[in-house]
Amino acid sequence: MAYEEFTIEGRNAVIEAFRSGRTIDKLYILDGCQDGPVMTIRREAKKQDTVVKYVTRERLDQLSVTGRHQGVIAVAAAYRYAEVSDILQAAEEKGEAPFLFLLDDIEDPHNLGAIIRTANLAGAHGVIIPKNHAVGLTATVARTSAGALNYTPVARVTNLSRTIEDLKKEGLWFVCADMDGTSMYQLDLKGPIGLVIGSEGNGVSRLVREKCDMTAAIPMKGNIDSLNASVAAGVLAYEIVRQRGV
Amino acid sequence: MAYEEFTIEGRNAVIEAFRSGRTIDKLYILDGCQDGPVMTIRREAKKQDTVVKYVTRERLDQLSVTGRHQGVIAVAAAYRYAEVSDILQAAEEKGEAPFLFLLDDIEDPHNLGAIIRTANLAGAHGVIIPKNHAVGLTATVARTSAGALNYTPVARVTNLSRTIEDLKKEGLWFVCADMDGTSMYQLDLKGPIGLVIGSEGNGVSRLVREKCDMTAAIPMKGNIDSLNASVAAGVLAYEIVRQRGV
Repeated sequence: MAYEEFTIEGRNAVIEAFRSGRTIDKLYILDGCQDGPVMTIRREAKKQDTVVKYVTRERLDQLSVTGRHQGVIAVAAAYRYAEVSDILQAAEEKGEAPFLFLLDDIEDPHNLGAIIRTANLAGAHGVIIPKNHAVGLTATVARTSAGALNYTPVARVTNLSRTIEDLKKEGLWFVCADMDGTSMYQLDLKGPIGLVIGSEGNGVSRLVREKCDMTAAIPMKGNIDSLNASVAAGVLAYEIVRQRGV
Repeated sequence: MAYEEFTIEGRNAVIEAFRSGRTIDKLYILDGCQDGPVMTIRREAKKQDTVVKYVTRERLDQLSVTGRHQGVIAVAAAYRYAEVSDILQAAEEKGEAPFLFLLDDIEDPHNLGAIIRTANLAGAHGVIIPKNHAVGLTATVARTSAGALNYTPVARVTNLSRTIEDLKKEGLWFVCADMDGTSMYQLDLKGPIGLVIGSEGNGVSRLVREKCDMTAAIPMKGNIDSLNASVAAGVLAYEIVRQRGV
């Protein structure tokens, strides 16, 4: 298992981290700041015996990785990458057919965070990212995931194609997003499924695409090339949600 | 009509701007840069008699607003805000029932850009934003719209509630995004429609929500509160696309 150090910045992200039961090692709050969200954070910190330090804006700016601390920075026990088997187990425990996101080289941390957020709300059991080329679970990813990183397991694998092969043996079907594919409305996206999303610009790589059972296109009625990667992931994920039944 | 000055930065955005027929006043290219996309841009510039200046990286960094120029910055004739009537006319010219996005105080330029991008690809006829509180058509919005700003008209209005009232007289129905609403899969979203998206954090304001005919919820199966605003806009827009038929 791999670990990565990080800070959680911004009020909502810190409140979510506390509420999810995550261990916060230390909490920095802007001295004199007493509004509602900050008081909520202080109460949560007290409950959990977290060390709180009241500091100047300069000190917060210095500690901040994202530049958007909103007066609150938590230093958290690092996020732990999950194993792929943990994700399958999560599905089994819920008695649901597995629903996974596989991200082929998403480089923008805002997109990765937004996609983990979407995975959580669409009821996916986990997210798989490749070890190389792609962004990891940085502070920006944690912040833009709006707390989803506390709930949705993220596994990192060396070779995405091989992982797809292994998961096919577990009965999963794979659908990759590609504008040359079949309209997503015409595909059967029910059952145990892995949704493969490519990077902005390059899309899903050939090797990974060839392993997929289906290629799904989002109908494009406009003049430009493609949706933002996190928007495309959301649109496809919710077509899967719709087909699975709500 | 209002005008705003801006630069277009990054290769794809500049290529899209040229191809859409937009007037580029001046083009800055990193001296010595000769790869494929840059050569494409130079050819487009030559066709349109655009003034090209070859400059140092330092000069580009200085000119850059977004900090992501990728060696190319175009100074464009400013984007022109459209009138609401232009948007309705665009729908009429296509012989389609109007499909509009109304954004209630989106403050993040990345979200605004991504939503305009989605509006274009979902086949919406235009986007309406309020004059106050919200972000305007900045360079970051233009870049993250990935060229969509060249095609999809954006109108700015003083009072979003009043605009909704006026558009109801034109036969439009309004659906606003709110997690307390009816599941979007159970609503009839066909016909002339305005999709109202609220700001991250605050959602759609009460005054605007009260003017809407329907409140649509995206089914939430996870642990956190809400999707990213641009992802939510994409998911709802494509439910409208699905119901309208592809």
